[in-house]
Amino acid sequence: MYLATMSKNGKNSETERIILGLDPGTNVMGYGLIATYGQKLKLLQFGVIHLSKYTGHELKLRKIFERVISLIEDYHPDEVALEAPFYGKNVQSMLKLGRAQGVAMAAALSREIPITEYAPKKVKQSVTSNGNASKEQVAAMLMTLLNFKDSPKLLDATDALAVAVCHHFQKGSAKTSTKSWKAFITENPGRIR
Amino acid sequence: MYLATMSKNGKNSETERIILGLDPGTNVMGYGLIATYGQKLKLLQFGVIHLSKYTGHELKLRKIFERVISLIEDYHPDEVALEAPFYGKNVQSMLKLGRAQGVAMAAALSREIPITEYAPKKVKQSVTSNGNASKEQVAAMLMTLLNFKDSPKLLDATDALAVAVCHHFQKGSAKTSTKSWKAFITENPGRIR
Repeated sequence: MYLATMSKNGKNSETERIILGLDPGTNVMGYGLIATYGQKLKLLQFGVIHLSKYTGHELKLRKIFERVISLIEDYHPDEVALEAPFYGKNVQSMLKLGRAQGVAMAAALSREIPITEYAPKKVKQSVTSNGNASKEQVAAMLMTLLNFKDSPKLLDATDALAVAVCHHFQKGSAKTSTKSWKAFITENPGRIR
Repeated sequence: MYLATMSKNGKNSETERIILGLDPGTNVMGYGLIATYGQKLKLLQFGVIHLSKYTGHELKLRKIFERVISLIEDYHPDEVALEAPFYGKNVQSMLKLGRAQGVAMAAALSREIPITEYAPKKVKQSVTSNGNASKEQVAAMLMTLLNFKDSPKLLDATDALAVAVCHHFQKGSAKTSTKSWKAFITENPGRIR
């Protein structure tokens, strides 16, 4: 977890916008927070929430909800950007992933924060100019863009940070509805199994 | 929608427990509310929330969240029972269903109301003593059990009512964690495609 030297809620007089990036999963959820000042970016925090230690699916969902609410209360993000893979090993894993995404989205919805979804390929393309970049390449680019040196052990954290940065690059504030599934499938034929 | 002649929040001095049954889907979400007094049951309300009229997946999820919160605020249920099918046509429909379930669950989690999940077969078995009963048979049994005459047009409403009744029959108050996926699969081999 990285903490920038800023007030706890991350807002100061120069702040234009705070973006919370989320990469929800059933065992690990990544999160990353950035503040944007025009075209400038500042890292606020990023990390992961470990869910595998909680036994029971409902408890995991409860923890996701609580932690996202806690991040919202601490940093008052103006927007939430969600990395939303539409693929999975099988229907059961997709249902689980959908629930994790739904709970994270509901936390944002409960505070009336607009959500924008991005497919993994779009995030990679936006951050590294290569839709097929590795997680390590994405992390390396973020270290340059956001000026930090210690890469986290779990790349779910940089994935979440990447979707926040992607949202900034996409000027995502004007786009509050999710992309259609049809459009996703068209753009990501390889991700639908 | 059916409204019993009771105070709006459904609670009175005799009430022991109010159960909100939910049958979340991506186009229609059924809900049913019952009050239980020992072994006695009283219908409070049931109906459906139409989601297909909302364009955009996020807007549908927002509506699910808002409506479940609204039901919770109006009736103050002590417990939520969720009909949770674990099957679907394909991974995309499962992801959508998982999101709908996740958002509905998050609404309950946000108010710290315990959730119990039931597989469709379990609900049918509990209400009609036949795990393979039709929706119409379930509705007919509920009309007898809860003493109402006008069956709703959409059986999603009676499905939701059925899961609330199932929860009562199962004395579900002691069971606050979700059933394991493994157990579900063992019990419902036919529902996993």
